[in-house]
Amino acid sequence: MAEEEVAENKQVILKHYVSGFPKESDMEIRTTKTQLKLPEGCSGAILVKNLYLSCDPYMRNRMRKMEGSYIESFTPGSPIGGYGVAEVLDSTHSNFNKGDLVWGRTTWEDHSIITSTESLAKIQHTDVPLSYYTGILAASGAVGQLVGQFAKLFGCYVVGSAGSKEKVDLLKNKFGFDKAFNYKEEADLNAALKRYFPDGIDIYFDNVGGKMLDAVLLHMTLHSRIAACGMISQYNLEQPEGVRNLMCLITKQIRMEGFLVFDYYHLYPKFLEMIIPQIKEGKITYVEDIAEGLENAPRALMGLFSGRNIGKQVVAVTRG
Amino acid sequence: MAEEEVAENKQVILKHYVSGFPKESDMEIRTTKTQLKLPEGCSGAILVKNLYLSCDPYMRNRMRKMEGSYIESFTPGSPIGGYGVAEVLDSTHSNFNKGDLVWGRTTWEDHSIITSTESLAKIQHTDVPLSYYTGILAASGAVGQLVGQFAKLFGCYVVGSAGSKEKVDLLKNKFGFDKAFNYKEEADLNAALKRYFPDGIDIYFDNVGGKMLDAVLLHMTLHSRIAACGMISQYNLEQPEGVRNLMCLITKQIRMEGFLVFDYYHLYPKFLEMIIPQIKEGKITYVEDIAEGLENAPRALMGLFSGRNIGKQVVAVTRG
Repeated sequence: MAEEEVAENKQVILKHYVSGFPKESDMEIRTTKTQLKLPEGCSGAILVKNLYLSCDPYMRNRMRKMEGSYIESFTPGSPIGGYGVAEVLDSTHSNFNKGDLVWGRTTWEDHSIITSTESLAKIQHTDVPLSYYTGILAASGAVGQLVGQFAKLFGCYVVGSAGSKEKVDLLKNKFGFDKAFNYKEEADLNAALKRYFPDGIDIYFDNVGGKMLDAVLLHMTLHSRIAACGMISQYNLEQPEGVRNLMCLITKQIRMEGFLVFDYYHLYPKFLEMIIPQIKEGKITYVEDIAEGLENAPRALMGLFSGRNIGKQVVAVTRG
Repeated sequence: MAEEEVAENKQVILKHYVSGFPKESDMEIRTTKTQLKLPEGCSGAILVKNLYLSCDPYMRNRMRKMEGSYIESFTPGSPIGGYGVAEVLDSTHSNFNKGDLVWGRTTWEDHSIITSTESLAKIQHTDVPLSYYTGILAASGAVGQLVGQFAKLFGCYVVGSAGSKEKVDLLKNKFGFDKAFNYKEEADLNAALKRYFPDGIDIYFDNVGGKMLDAVLLHMTLHSRIAACGMISQYNLEQPEGVRNLMCLITKQIRMEGFLVFDYYHLYPKFLEMIIPQIKEGKITYVEDIAEGLENAPRALMGLFSGRNIGKQVVAVTRG
């Protein structure tokens, strides 16, 4: 085996299960060596060079020990994983060839051998930024900025809630939300919701949970709907907060339904068909916050929970 | 006006708004006089003799001051109201004649003048007990006993939760539930649910809310459904309990939907068509707990919250 086939492989390792608010120091960077060819006998697999990694709030849950969940926990001492964009360097799988660009589940390291290729899709449209396949083109976020814009396309009155003045400005001025407010500056969420939704809320897209959900329930209209997508306010708590206003579900005949992306993969081609022209024509605005290099990856991931990122948080593993 | 047209009219009065656990003494019996004919000029109305009154948990909420709710608060100093069965004594409304039997919204007293007749329906089937039109034939309960039996008719595995050994026996032996347990004897609801639902819960019909709902969420299966009908465990609390496990809605893609009977009145004829034969053939068992006389009505209503009643709680105003 030739010398040049071995390369450095930087990995982002979870040191231990995390309780409470996660810290950069719960992860560490480890550098190993990796061969740039699949080992002999490794059939139906691909070796990839990772290009972009997606930072997503749900990953927090994988940092704790879970049983019977919809996703597995990360393994302490091993590299964490998630969605990403990668280039195929070697393949023993008939669907993939060297040079293919793919998106799907990969590992937080420079090079990965992927044996479970079911989650991978080949990237067909390369005339949009490749990093978009960690977010808008992977239907995985940053969700809020897109939901609001989609709602505007459907003619809704859209109000966003964010955690800084900069983000509020972005929602209003760049994403075209009708209104936006900084929930950190609203001592009384109830009063804020009353102000922004004098006629009540017909659709609440919930990525937050907890106190916001509890306040929103009071302002939902009859037969309104709550799409439960995430509860980021709860992920770092030892015990989730209690939501007290669920009686509103009955008195206002509200439907609240949780969903995961897995159920909707069959709609992905249709989604691409819709979204690619929207992006090219500038009708959908998409903002990314790109951290450079795996060594900055832990900080980027942790930033989600303090709200440091502006737009979709991505890690660019390599620009080469 | 002839002497015999004036009769005693016993009324159940709400003395004041109630907070916390309601007591019999929050109500009082007042005896007034009433004419047994509609006053002149009172058009589009009916005068009824009340026969049966329905005791329902939602009535607790009407004992507090509410604004913008789906039902109005009762008025302190005035008789309370609810659903009941009555006989028409006099009518200036073209749809109703003297002697008609009706069910719908009435007042807790011997005789009532009803000017809002929209909620009233004439009783066509009189070959079943008239009191059934406060419950099973008014699609208003006691809900649990019926939901379980309907679920059995649809082939479900049905487990009921009740608050006494007597009720648990009733669920299993009389209503044909597969299993039933006494939640008051289960120190660990989680363990109880694990025992009764080793494969998880596909459908939860929730009349309880609070701790039971929180525990149930952990045992729901993927894509399962929660019909939110009532939250009786919460009605007497100053502040509702917090439900912590809502994240399950997302991870298990659960639909939770609240409903009120008003949305489904159009299905009532179809329901009657289905249920009347079921009752006559003994395929549906219906248990009532009938209190005699308006003077026992406050105690009967309060009994709902301590679980004193066995089956649908009804007040028989008169047997005459």
